[in-house]
Amino acid sequence: MNPNFQTVGLWGDTSRDEVAGPVEAIAQHLDSHGIGTVSLAPSGDGTSTAEAADVDLIIAIGGDGTLLRAARSVATADVPLIGVNLGRLGFLTDVSRDQVPEIIDAVLAGDFIEEERVMLETRFSSGGKTTDRMLALNDVAVKVGGSGHMQDFATWVDGVYVNTHGGDGLIVATATGSTAYALSCGGPIIHPNVAALVIVPICPHTLSDRPLVLPTESTIEIRIQPRFDDTAHVSCDGEDTGELGDGDTLSIRVARETVRLLHPHGYDYFELLRSKLSWGHTERAPRGSEC
Amino acid sequence: MNPNFQTVGLWGDTSRDEVAGPVEAIAQHLDSHGIGTVSLAPSGDGTSTAEAADVDLIIAIGGDGTLLRAARSVATADVPLIGVNLGRLGFLTDVSRDQVPEIIDAVLAGDFIEEERVMLETRFSSGGKTTDRMLALNDVAVKVGGSGHMQDFATWVDGVYVNTHGGDGLIVATATGSTAYALSCGGPIIHPNVAALVIVPICPHTLSDRPLVLPTESTIEIRIQPRFDDTAHVSCDGEDTGELGDGDTLSIRVARETVRLLHPHGYDYFELLRSKLSWGHTERAPRGSEC
Amino acid sequence: MNPNFQTVGLWGDTSRDEVAGPVEAIAQHLDSHGIGTVSLAPSGDGTSTAEAADVDLIIAIGGDGTLLRAARSVATADVPLIGVNLGRLGFLTDVSRDQVPEIIDAVLAGDFIEEERVMLETRFSSGGKTTDRMLALNDVAVKVGGSGHMQDFATWVDGVYVNTHGGDGLIVATATGSTAYALSCGGPIIHPNVAALVIVPICPHTLSDRPLVLPTESTIEIRIQPRFDDTAHVSCDGEDTGELGDGDTLSIRVARETVRLLHPHGYDYFELLRSKLSWGHTERAPRGSEC
Amino acid sequence: MNPNFQTVGLWGDTSRDEVAGPVEAIAQHLDSHGIGTVSLAPSGDGTSTAEAADVDLIIAIGGDGTLLRAARSVATADVPLIGVNLGRLGFLTDVSRDQVPEIIDAVLAGDFIEEERVMLETRFSSGGKTTDRMLALNDVAVKVGGSGHMQDFATWVDGVYVNTHGGDGLIVATATGSTAYALSCGGPIIHPNVAALVIVPICPHTLSDRPLVLPTESTIEIRIQPRFDDTAHVSCDGEDTGELGDGDTLSIRVARETVRLLHPHGYDYFELLRSKLSWGHTERAPRGSEC
Repeated sequence: MNPNFQTVGLWGDTSRDEVAGPVEAIAQHLDSHGIGTVSLAPSGDGTSTAEAADVDLIIAIGGDGTLLRAARSVATADVPLIGVNLGRLGFLTDVSRDQVPEIIDAVLAGDFIEEERVMLETRFSSGGKTTDRMLALNDVAVKVGGSGHMQDFATWVDGVYVNTHGGDGLIVATATGSTAYALSCGGPIIHPNVAALVIVPICPHTLSDRPLVLPTESTIEIRIQPRFDDTAHVSCDGEDTGELGDGDTLSIRVARETVRLLHPHGYDYFELLRSKLSWGHTERAPRGSEC
Repeated sequence: MNPNFQTVGLWGDTSRDEVAGPVEAIAQHLDSHGIGTVSLAPSGDGTSTAEAADVDLIIAIGGDGTLLRAARSVATADVPLIGVNLGRLGFLTDVSRDQVPEIIDAVLAGDFIEEERVMLETRFSSGGKTTDRMLALNDVAVKVGGSGHMQDFATWVDGVYVNTHGGDGLIVATATGSTAYALSCGGPIIHPNVAALVIVPICPHTLSDRPLVLPTESTIEIRIQPRFDDTAHVSCDGEDTGELGDGDTLSIRVARETVRLLHPHGYDYFELLRSKLSWGHTERAPRGSEC
Repeated sequence: MNPNFQTVGLWGDTSRDEVAGPVEAIAQHLDSHGIGTVSLAPSGDGTSTAEAADVDLIIAIGGDGTLLRAARSVATADVPLIGVNLGRLGFLTDVSRDQVPEIIDAVLAGDFIEEERVMLETRFSSGGKTTDRMLALNDVAVKVGGSGHMQDFATWVDGVYVNTHGGDGLIVATATGSTAYALSCGGPIIHPNVAALVIVPICPHTLSDRPLVLPTESTIEIRIQPRFDDTAHVSCDGEDTGELGDGDTLSIRVARETVRLLHPHGYDYFELLRSKLSWGHTERAPRGSEC
Repeated sequence: MNPNFQTVGLWGDTSRDEVAGPVEAIAQHLDSHGIGTVSLAPSGDGTSTAEAADVDLIIAIGGDGTLLRAARSVATADVPLIGVNLGRLGFLTDVSRDQVPEIIDAVLAGDFIEEERVMLETRFSSGGKTTDRMLALNDVAVKVGGSGHMQDFATWVDGVYVNTHGGDGLIVATATGSTAYALSCGGPIIHPNVAALVIVPICPHTLSDRPLVLPTESTIEIRIQPRFDDTAHVSCDGEDTGELGDGDTLSIRVARETVRLLHPHGYDYFELLRSKLSWGHTERAPRGSEC
């Protein structure tokens, strides 16, 4: 099946030399195949979305952070994405620079694996008003400010009270985000085909406060119960999006938009895990062995 | 809706006085409502299943271990279960002894919450032969023997190689089992409504070898790669079921049978978590607080 | 042996009614024994130290946070402290309000256990200048700001490079502080008689980046290597003490001053652990058990 | 200072070809310097110790397991050891095969770093009888048998009750052993210069049951409180040493003998940690980064 990609959007921070070169090379390669390209500037999110609606495929060039931003920015355009890493292998940018011509040719010929990933949408509610939603492909983090004080974070799922988590905060992650910040906080690895979110407490005061895996249908609400007059910082995919104050509610659920990721033929999620997590490359000697 | 429970099976270890009394009391209570009872002996699994097919409801009286055994034994009979604990609250035996008459009356009147839980089925393959399946509601554990030596456990999901886990072993748990042994080994809490299994490494040699949440459709295969001439012990819900030797394959997947758990009206999974995990009862003082 | 306590300093936040009452009661009790009391105001640290030099014993009334502040404020005066909790048992405030008259009488009669705890002293160095030291009895924490970005924290021990820790930050804790914030971040419990500090990474990016227990003689240096233009927040015992910028060095070592804690006869550190960590009070049923 | 090593013991499993070659090469190298060598057979422990008393230095050739066994076997002879690894770098066998001639020459010339490590001695007591002690350089592990059942392990330190740990067992490790099995069970890394032992619970049922660092002066006693008729397996440095039954006491303390490890000039413990734990080699992309 020929996917008929006629126009391709190139997403990369071309103000950086190490990105501009590869972006230009990819543009030329596509041009030689008669495929038009559009440069999608990371800085102009609104514009990008408008422009993104006119392309048939987006190639994000940089690292996982680049693809995360592209995915959020063009979410409503429903265009498939493919990620090219310029350094080390990414969970999302699984095409290396060397492989680009070969893999682009294969993708143009319809030889790829398409995968659908969910995104989170987040809103603040305060005094009867609700903000516009913010999107996240990996995670939403709610954290104490710079002070050393811990805070209490109360959670509800579908309106049912769950727990009041004392500590540094909470992460709500998708399966995609389970290998990012959530993993550093003790969360599990969630296969992308599992329809689940996970709430991961950050440095919890109560030692039995553990990661909680929930259905993707869940609506999660978080309120802080400040011990002091602090607020909590909210970030989506690691980018600041606001402050949660006393009396505010942060509401998180799966967005109706999804991200369509294209992978090269032969894509293997477990191989990616082995590579990224250095499984099998331990240097510690096995215990109890004679040599 | 009236569930029309005409005959109820009572599952409990009546050879123990502290169980026999409550079982008798429940039988009398049911008799006073014109409901017949059948005693289902835990020791005769085959017989139990046969008998179980003739009852409309099974009440397991004891603790979570009692209900786990009942669920495995009567799995093919497709009869709903309700669990009565005789001591402390269980994850599965959420009806306390005091509540029994009131809750039984409510259940007989159709006032209950029904929940479906998946079970695992496990088979050994060796030299072209495959054993009968063993069932587990919580988990299947594959562990090194008593020796201090670690072993290597190789895993595949749906035929795709995942990893070779050095350490004490692996647990494959259902959402139901996620709050049992798997939790002690660093696994996440999985809400029963999430269609997922989890592979949890036991004391992994590689520190990045972390719990992996998989779709319930997965078939998981485990083989040991012995460093010494050890075998590995396999247990289902904590009961020994065999030895996995060099060259053998253990295959684990979700069984077609499910367990139908009945809970009293007002059942709240999160309240159960808070109670069982002592959330909110910490005695450690909050850090950085003036008092 | 009679300790000859003639003047006792009372340390508590008497602006709060729930503290003022108990402080007044303790003052009256001491007065009835012919012991003079001095009120040591938490807010005037400099003054407190001056005043503290004139007392023979300080009773800190409130919670662990109260005693931490008292200990830092009067460190140079070398006066023993005893901690009274007004709510739940503290690791440091192990005398409950009910026990106060009896235990004070015992302490005045010389019936107590004296224990010496080390403190940390911390200095910032920047451009050849070094700040005054700050003291901490529990811990020094260096953490990223509110942004979701992780940072790199490079560490040296006695001038030897240790590691560059990517993540949310680092805690350097004493044995005393090992049961506070450090425990929430995965650190071990360190018995107060062990001459050790511990560096605990906060939500480390590298999963093998684990708590590192070091001799108390160690001088630990920390520098941030910012990925962005962020600084890191430094706090001592949970109270903000400054920002660590690019090029600055934070130096942490054990202070020459120690804290002399007095405990009632029968003080048992392990009993305190069992109580504070709810050991033995688990509600989860044992796995594999019949009931 | 010339250490005057006149006779060197060579410890290696020469029944294996990949060990016999390097052992022979080292013997020839020493012979060319006029140094006599004695082959110390791993299998004859008693003989080895006798023989070991006549040598001035032991070179253990193999891996960490080889050096652990050598250290236990020759403990009473008070002879320094140096470890040569034949494959990957070990925590204890930090000389690689390539470096052998150069480093041996340096060591013979007195250019080395000497380090003293404590060992554990362990005894079973049962019915008034106490066994001979067993030695361990890394750790003593007490674990449930192959059954899936958890057990209760009660602990005392210097005769004071600590806790009853439900779970798979306990590890008591030295600083040396803190990077071995204990690390896989969530224990901290303990610098060899810290005078400490650590008790690490294995898969504890109670989630607040955490590693406990104790002074090296501690005597630790462990008894099982069987839920079933199981015993527990005891191993020293990963080698089976006996069964702990109901009513038995296992007593563990630091032995009077120590192990004197020689390291090449430039030995750096933190570099060893970085190498063995793959610090700084993570492949996961930093979170929140643009590339």
